[in-house]
Amino acid sequence: MKIAVDAMGGDNAPEAIVSGSLQAVQRWPDLEIILVGDPKKIQGCLEKIPGGNSGNSATVSGSDLSQKITIEEASELITMDEHPANAVRKKKNASIVVATRMVKDGRADALVSAGSTGAQMAAALLGLGRISGIDRPAICSVLPAPSGAKVLLDVGANLDAKPENLCQFALMGSIYAQMILKIEQPRVALLNIGSEEGKGNQLTQQAYDLMKSVPINFTGNIEGRDLMYDQADVIVCDAFVGNIVLKTLEGFSAYLFGLLKETLSATFTRKIGAAMVMPALKHMKASFDYTDYGGAPLLGVAGTSIICHGSSNAKAIMNAIRVAGECVEDGVIDDIERCLSHFAIKRS
Amino acid sequence: MKIAVDAMGGDNAPEAIVSGSLQAVQRWPDLEIILVGDPKKIQGCLEKIPGGNSGNSATVSGSDLSQKITIEEASELITMDEHPANAVRKKKNASIVVATRMVKDGRADALVSAGSTGAQMAAALLGLGRISGIDRPAICSVLPAPSGAKVLLDVGANLDAKPENLCQFALMGSIYAQMILKIEQPRVALLNIGSEEGKGNQLTQQAYDLMKSVPINFTGNIEGRDLMYDQADVIVCDAFVGNIVLKTLEGFSAYLFGLLKETLSATFTRKIGAAMVMPALKHMKASFDYTDYGGAPLLGVAGTSIICHGSSNAKAIMNAIRVAGECVEDGVIDDIERCLSHFAIKRS
Repeated sequence: MKIAVDAMGGDNAPEAIVSGSLQAVQRWPDLEIILVGDPKKIQGCLEKIPGGNSGNSATVSGSDLSQKITIEEASELITMDEHPANAVRKKKNASIVVATRMVKDGRADALVSAGSTGAQMAAALLGLGRISGIDRPAICSVLPAPSGAKVLLDVGANLDAKPENLCQFALMGSIYAQMILKIEQPRVALLNIGSEEGKGNQLTQQAYDLMKSVPINFTGNIEGRDLMYDQADVIVCDAFVGNIVLKTLEGFSAYLFGLLKETLSATFTRKIGAAMVMPALKHMKASFDYTDYGGAPLLGVAGTSIICHGSSNAKAIMNAIRVAGECVEDGVIDDIERCLSHFAIKRS
Repeated sequence: MKIAVDAMGGDNAPEAIVSGSLQAVQRWPDLEIILVGDPKKIQGCLEKIPGGNSGNSATVSGSDLSQKITIEEASELITMDEHPANAVRKKKNASIVVATRMVKDGRADALVSAGSTGAQMAAALLGLGRISGIDRPAICSVLPAPSGAKVLLDVGANLDAKPENLCQFALMGSIYAQMILKIEQPRVALLNIGSEEGKGNQLTQQAYDLMKSVPINFTGNIEGRDLMYDQADVIVCDAFVGNIVLKTLEGFSAYLFGLLKETLSATFTRKIGAAMVMPALKHMKASFDYTDYGGAPLLGVAGTSIICHGSSNAKAIMNAIRVAGECVEDGVIDDIERCLSHFAIKRS
């Protein structure tokens, strides 16, 4: 399996990207990584990282490594402040465009990037195209929760969605939860302001009606207060709401754990008590760690494109590569295509 | 100052409502409460609660109390599953309709209810009408945060808002933060998926442009991850997003503190450690307690109507009565009206 990794995208590129890629090939021996970007910078990172060029790795020897990791030159870069679609059209040698082209040409099975989400989406739409039956792709995020991970989509692709888009998201999210999270009959819920049928704005009211006829295990509406509890496996919403909810959860979680740390180190007694509970608190915090899930696939395009947090560290990149590998191995895209060929979602 | 309190609305009515009203008159001697509902049930509660009919109160004697708390009969009740506007039109003697009418007729200065939010809004719109210059009212919630409380609106009134509605919410929220939270020049931000201008869906993009010309301290977009930090005093969004964000925060906070309690009592060592940090954790938890803020005013209608959580306890009701009193005393509605007479928000 070959994964093209955009070495130049993200706040911590290229170091964290190269480091995460190395960790991935050391961990999963069947994997080959193509690092896409500036060869000099990538080579520099490979030489600096232990195991990168010295053969110190426990599972992959130095000579193996040179076969496992190759570099594909890409001389341009799309920054966060460029207009995504224009930049993708203009910069044919941008790392995200080259990585996407490799998937299109069959030189890679999937791609991973922590660069501009807009550019990655534009490159996928222009370079790979949509799956037949899907009007709009969706970014499919995994919400970590101690009661079990759940899928939240769309968290960033379509800011002004229509009811039929939400139905397609529901179908894609259900397949993703089934194949990647290994949930047999995923419970699919619509994020809404009330649990009863008939609640919501125009979009969710119409989507509710349509979703009843989609071949999924639709369980109705779910409210914001129940997101963390074991009530649904797939939560569907438009990207504006999904993005705000995801960031609200991330921000609040970081804020609370920060406050907790500060509170518990304020006095001597608390410090002693904190020492006794800290391992448990760290374990609890880790159960919300998004870097375990690494990346969010852009579902609905005809190829596997995994979108990472801009602030991804090496661990997140490694896990995003794992997610890419699983999507390819389990044939998630083929399954979405097959499912849509049997069932067309009616337009409202 | 006279406050009409809907004694029949809410999960814990009438006990918690009557008890909260009693606490309010004991705490604020200038207050008079009119409990609206079934006289027998209300009287029963008053007799059961210490201080209610026995004169045991520390600040108000029994004879004083009978002057401080009176009962207004209302023989009907609107339940959560009724269509709000239809029910309000049909049930002229419902407690929420009677309480609203008392404000309209000048027999009460404000009203408080923990019953059906939809019915309370319908009663306010039909009974009190809108302030001139306001197209749609908004429910204005206070987000408790250790860094300082902030205003979030709309959290429930208008599910499909227009850009000019968001501008009116911004103006009303700013006045509310100034008068009730005593923040001199409240920083008003638009809840969005990115911090840069030009980000967002159609609604927020258009609202951003309009908000620049509103006479408020508009500081631009705010993302979900920054909600808890000290970046804005007033956060503006449509009710669909606001309701989901508010409930997500409430739910996640309850979930995390529950998990924390469970985690810290799992082993003997942790229990000892927990005992040493528990007072600090309780203090931390209390700083997120919504019952301190009690109720959310429905801003934009020509009268003070305070909406409480359906699950309100006595403390939340007492604080909602306090908020009602402050709104009346500070002339929040007059101020919104005055501000709008000087400045008309352009339609997009």
